[in-house]
Amino acid sequence: MARIVMKFGGTSVADIGRIRNVARHVKREVDAGHEVAVVVSAMAGKTNELVSWVQEASKAEGTNFNIYDAREYDAIVASGEQVTSGLLALVLQSMGVNARSWQGWQIPIRTDNAHGAARIAEIDGSFLIKRFEEGQVAVVSGFQGLAPDNRIATLGRGGSDTSAVAIAAAVKADRCDIYTDVDGVYTTDPRVEPKARRLSKISFEEMLELASLGAKVLQVRSVELAMVHKVRTFVRSSFDDPDAPGMGDFDNPPGTLICEEDEIVEQQVVTGIAYAKDEAQISLRRVADRPGVAAGIFGPLAEAGINVDMIVQNISEDGSRTDMTFTVSSGDVDKALAVLEKGRATIGFDAVQHDEGMSKISVIGIGMRSHAGVAATAFNALAEKGINILAITTSEIKISILIDGSYTELAVRTLHSVYGLDKQ
Amino acid sequence: MARIVMKFGGTSVADIGRIRNVARHVKREVDAGHEVAVVVSAMAGKTNELVSWVQEASKAEGTNFNIYDAREYDAIVASGEQVTSGLLALVLQSMGVNARSWQGWQIPIRTDNAHGAARIAEIDGSFLIKRFEEGQVAVVSGFQGLAPDNRIATLGRGGSDTSAVAIAAAVKADRCDIYTDVDGVYTTDPRVEPKARRLSKISFEEMLELASLGAKVLQVRSVELAMVHKVRTFVRSSFDDPDAPGMGDFDNPPGTLICEEDEIVEQQVVTGIAYAKDEAQISLRRVADRPGVAAGIFGPLAEAGINVDMIVQNISEDGSRTDMTFTVSSGDVDKALAVLEKGRATIGFDAVQHDEGMSKISVIGIGMRSHAGVAATAFNALAEKGINILAITTSEIKISILIDGSYTELAVRTLHSVYGLDKQ
Repeated sequence: MARIVMKFGGTSVADIGRIRNVARHVKREVDAGHEVAVVVSAMAGKTNELVSWVQEASKAEGTNFNIYDAREYDAIVASGEQVTSGLLALVLQSMGVNARSWQGWQIPIRTDNAHGAARIAEIDGSFLIKRFEEGQVAVVSGFQGLAPDNRIATLGRGGSDTSAVAIAAAVKADRCDIYTDVDGVYTTDPRVEPKARRLSKISFEEMLELASLGAKVLQVRSVELAMVHKVRTFVRSSFDDPDAPGMGDFDNPPGTLICEEDEIVEQQVVTGIAYAKDEAQISLRRVADRPGVAAGIFGPLAEAGINVDMIVQNISEDGSRTDMTFTVSSGDVDKALAVLEKGRATIGFDAVQHDEGMSKISVIGIGMRSHAGVAATAFNALAEKGINILAITTSEIKISILIDGSYTELAVRTLHSVYGLDKQ
Repeated sequence: MARIVMKFGGTSVADIGRIRNVARHVKREVDAGHEVAVVVSAMAGKTNELVSWVQEASKAEGTNFNIYDAREYDAIVASGEQVTSGLLALVLQSMGVNARSWQGWQIPIRTDNAHGAARIAEIDGSFLIKRFEEGQVAVVSGFQGLAPDNRIATLGRGGSDTSAVAIAAAVKADRCDIYTDVDGVYTTDPRVEPKARRLSKISFEEMLELASLGAKVLQVRSVELAMVHKVRTFVRSSFDDPDAPGMGDFDNPPGTLICEEDEIVEQQVVTGIAYAKDEAQISLRRVADRPGVAAGIFGPLAEAGINVDMIVQNISEDGSRTDMTFTVSSGDVDKALAVLEKGRATIGFDAVQHDEGMSKISVIGIGMRSHAGVAATAFNALAEKGINILAITTSEIKISILIDGSYTELAVRTLHSVYGLDKQ
């Protein structure tokens, strides 16, 4: 007997037929004698519909002004998960499984006051545990909690992953299963490199880098939380037949286990290759090279909610002026240029240039810590294919390289091969 | 300065355009200096959609068995009002009106544990009153509250009227305005009798009879509650131009005031004529005429949730057997016949007959208490038109007459005329 948290996303609960399939996954674990909490997202498309209503309602007549009260946004948008949790509880009951729905405010899942993008502060797992002992499955609305102002707070897009991991930590679950539309974590995107292989295990640190670098399997914060609380997390497919052989294998279900490094016996130097398209490069020419200039540039961008990624500062020619180059996502270019233009007098620069259509390719592997030459291998391999490197950033366990976007697939396949990820 | 509760139903908030119209009604009262709470239903069609999902989810595979957990029903269906209250708060904010949404569990509106058809037990008005004093409009999700089990409870269909009146009582509002798709209470249905006139005032008791007898303007329980707490309630149209002359007239807005009897100066003997189609008559032939036989018949019917209306017991021929005739709504006939057949041995009767397609016509007026001959006038008028009376029930302020349904419109017009309701 174990305690399991299972999480299902929007496409897995898109209609009652699919919710019934989800219920069969749940019933399989219940029948195996496990205690189960299920965390669900809103039905696919529902959140977008609700958000569009929020935007329409908030628009002052005759203007394009559209800033909304995040507390009302939360009350409206959280209704999507409320519906799904109730429906799954009903379907489970119709299959003879004892189940009930829980809203964030009922458990409660306490958050901070940052409506619209709240962080979970505390979860009282005692009610859920009491019900487990009575043999009841808890069906929990993901993506939401109760803020200190006694109003609903949502956790931001993809927040249901975070709900699931946080609940797993609160009830001391043996495992958190994230059911999604892919069947695990791959060495790279199989649509780009058909030789990509599913990893049976990946460390929390590597998964955190992968999630941060564009792999859309899991929300970044859910991985952080899993790492902090050491929640063993499986990524697996919700579209598999719930009763296929091996699906209920407790120790080794089909999918990828995200776990602590020391649980991974045969650690590779490089675990995977990630990529993010639609990067843009902005260059400020002949910026005054004096203390505080970086803060003058990146402070206002951060305040405007623009995420600046790679930063390259050239050595100045004459010691007084320098070029400053950085990347943002393409969608933020216009906003970034406006912010920079506004601060031009304060910052002091000659010209601003921008290029869109860049890609960032990242090589991730915890083994890099103890292996030299990983970066050099990447540079050589890309040079052989004639791919120009525009910028580089590195961390202890990853190397990110900015290149022209048209070489994305070639670069991914080249690196996947050079680190031996093609082989079984 | 007064305190007003305004209630808007599903057709009035069917989309953002209509919600904007509702907001203009609210803004008019706010601009006049009043303190305002607004109670809203779900967007038209939304509740039906959610209910159909509940039914689909509750159906066990391969069966027609469909009984659902009312607590889950409540969590799912109440999400409709949650969305509307948030959207109206946002639209009000976009017009510069200080507003926030309130869910039933936040106020809280405490109900009993009868999920799916709960009754309001207690409302703490203190939070709302505090916000009034800060100049904030309260936008309250109708139709719902918090049950003792800390879960959402809904009040049954049309429950938002009841929410509005209960909140008006809790915050000691000067008035409760029920905005609906008709512009007041009429002497009878204007689709049947074009000479029907809008009443400027009607007593609580009369409105209660009208609501119970098929007039769909207000939910019965909301009228009961208004009567008990003496909440002056206006029925008025949500489709009027919010800024038309007279709309903000505090003492005399366009519509019908439901109030205490002594506020109505020129009381008519008869106030209105109501009708209910689709009545069915069931007769049990040669029932044993002994004590307890009525309980043996009507007890099981009540347990099956069948509402029995008019009951006629013929005088038995020989003192041992009698005929028992009663009416139910046509939709309940099959269920009623099944219940009776099941209890046949216990009850003891020779045969059961049923006729559908009956109508019940009711004459309502508080003045009947002090005027004799009101019933005789109705019987004579109907007899003159050749309309046969199948059954009669009376109360202190109403007479109900069962007739063949094909005479419904003729009977309504005849009675409307004979009591002088056609005249201004």
